[in-house]
Amino acid sequence: MSSRDVPAPVIRRLTIYLRALMFLVDEGQEIISSEELGNKLGISSAQIRKDLSYFGEFGKQGTGYEIRHLREQLKRILKVDREWGIALVGAGDLGHAIVHYEGFKNRGFYIAAIFDKDPQKIGRKIRGLEVLDSRLLPKVVKEMGLKVAIVAVPANEAQKAVDTLVASGIKAILNYAPITLNVPAGVQIRCIDPVTRLQNMTYYL
Amino acid sequence: MSSRDVPAPVIRRLTIYLRALMFLVDEGQEIISSEELGNKLGISSAQIRKDLSYFGEFGKQGTGYEIRHLREQLKRILKVDREWGIALVGAGDLGHAIVHYEGFKNRGFYIAAIFDKDPQKIGRKIRGLEVLDSRLLPKVVKEMGLKVAIVAVPANEAQKAVDTLVASGIKAILNYAPITLNVPAGVQIRCIDPVTRLQNMTYYL
Repeated sequence: MSSRDVPAPVIRRLTIYLRALMFLVDEGQEIISSEELGNKLGISSAQIRKDLSYFGEFGKQGTGYEIRHLREQLKRILKVDREWGIALVGAGDLGHAIVHYEGFKNRGFYIAAIFDKDPQKIGRKIRGLEVLDSRLLPKVVKEMGLKVAIVAVPANEAQKAVDTLVASGIKAILNYAPITLNVPAGVQIRCIDPVTRLQNMTYYL
Repeated sequence: MSSRDVPAPVIRRLTIYLRALMFLVDEGQEIISSEELGNKLGISSAQIRKDLSYFGEFGKQGTGYEIRHLREQLKRILKVDREWGIALVGAGDLGHAIVHYEGFKNRGFYIAAIFDKDPQKIGRKIRGLEVLDSRLLPKVVKEMGLKVAIVAVPANEAQKAVDTLVASGIKAILNYAPITLNVPAGVQIRCIDPVTRLQNMTYYL
C-alpha cells in the first residue's frame, strides 16, 4: 500500500503506539491486547485494530500483540528502523536544549550538525559537536546526505532558514518558531506549538 | 453541552482552527468558507462543520464564517478569552527558551513564575522575572492562583516536579521531559514530544 493511501491521522497515531510500546518493553511487558493499549492511550481498541490493519496482521485473536514484534514493525513502517541525522539550525537556548534532549536516543534520530550565523556561537562546542557557520549549511547537508532538519531560530529568521534547508535537499522539517512556514510540495513540515497543547487543556478547566 | 460530551480530537482540531483564524486576521482576511479553511489545514470541510456544530451555528450557508467572530467564539470555548499565568519549572536552556518564546502572546498565556532548585540559578532574572527557589513553589502557586504549569526539567526530576505541582493546585501540565508522567484524575497533562512529530514525517520519506 502506498503512503498516500493511509490517512494522516493513522500515521500520527502509529507514532503514539510506537512510543507506548517502547515504554512497555522497558517495563518488561511482552504481550498486550488492543483493549489494554487503548485504555492506556485513551483510544478505542477498534481504532487501534483498524489503524494497524492498513499494514497487515499483527496480533492473534484472543492473545493480543507480541510487543517487541509490533514495535519492530511500527519502526519499519515509520522508517525509524534506521537512524536519521538531523541538521539543527540555531544554537541559542533552544538549540542547546535540543542537543541535550535525551528523547532522541533509540527512537531513530540524532543531531548530526548544528548551524548558526552568530560569530559568537560559531566554533563553540555543544555536547562535543561544533557549531558551524550557517553559510556552510548547503555544503554540509549535501555531503552528509541529511534529509531531516530542526529549525530553532527566531520567527523572523525561520522562513529564510527553511528556504535554505529545502534548497540543500532537506525533506522533513520540524519548526519550533511561532510562525507558519511555506515549503514546496514534497517537503514535510511540522510545528512544535506549545500553545495549541495548552489550549487543549484549558478547555477542560 | 458538557466538556465530557465532545470527543478529544474535536478539541484538538479547534486549537488548530483557532491558530489558523488568528493568522488570517493578521493577514487582513474577513470571511472564510469551511472549504477554504479545510484546504489550508488539510482537513475536510465536512469535518470542520461537524466539529463546530458541537458548539452552535457559526457560519451562514453560502457566505462562510466571519473570521473575527469565529475566532472570539473559539477563544471562549477553549477558555483562552482570558490570560492564564503559567508556573514554569526549570530555568535551564529549555526554561530560558520558553520564557523567551514569542508564541504565547495574545493566545491566552504568559509566564507568571519560574522555579529552579539550583542555587546558581535562583535569584537570576530571565526577561525581568526572578527565578524562585523550587521550595517556594507550593506557596507561590497557591497565592497567585495558578492552574497551568510547564515542566522543563530533566526526565529523572519530572515526576517529582509534577507531584509538587499537583499538590499545589495545578490542573494542567505541559511536559517537555522525554518521560511518561502520572497525574491523578482531574489533572490534564500533555507532552511535547519532538520525536513523534519527526516520525510522522519520516514515514513519508
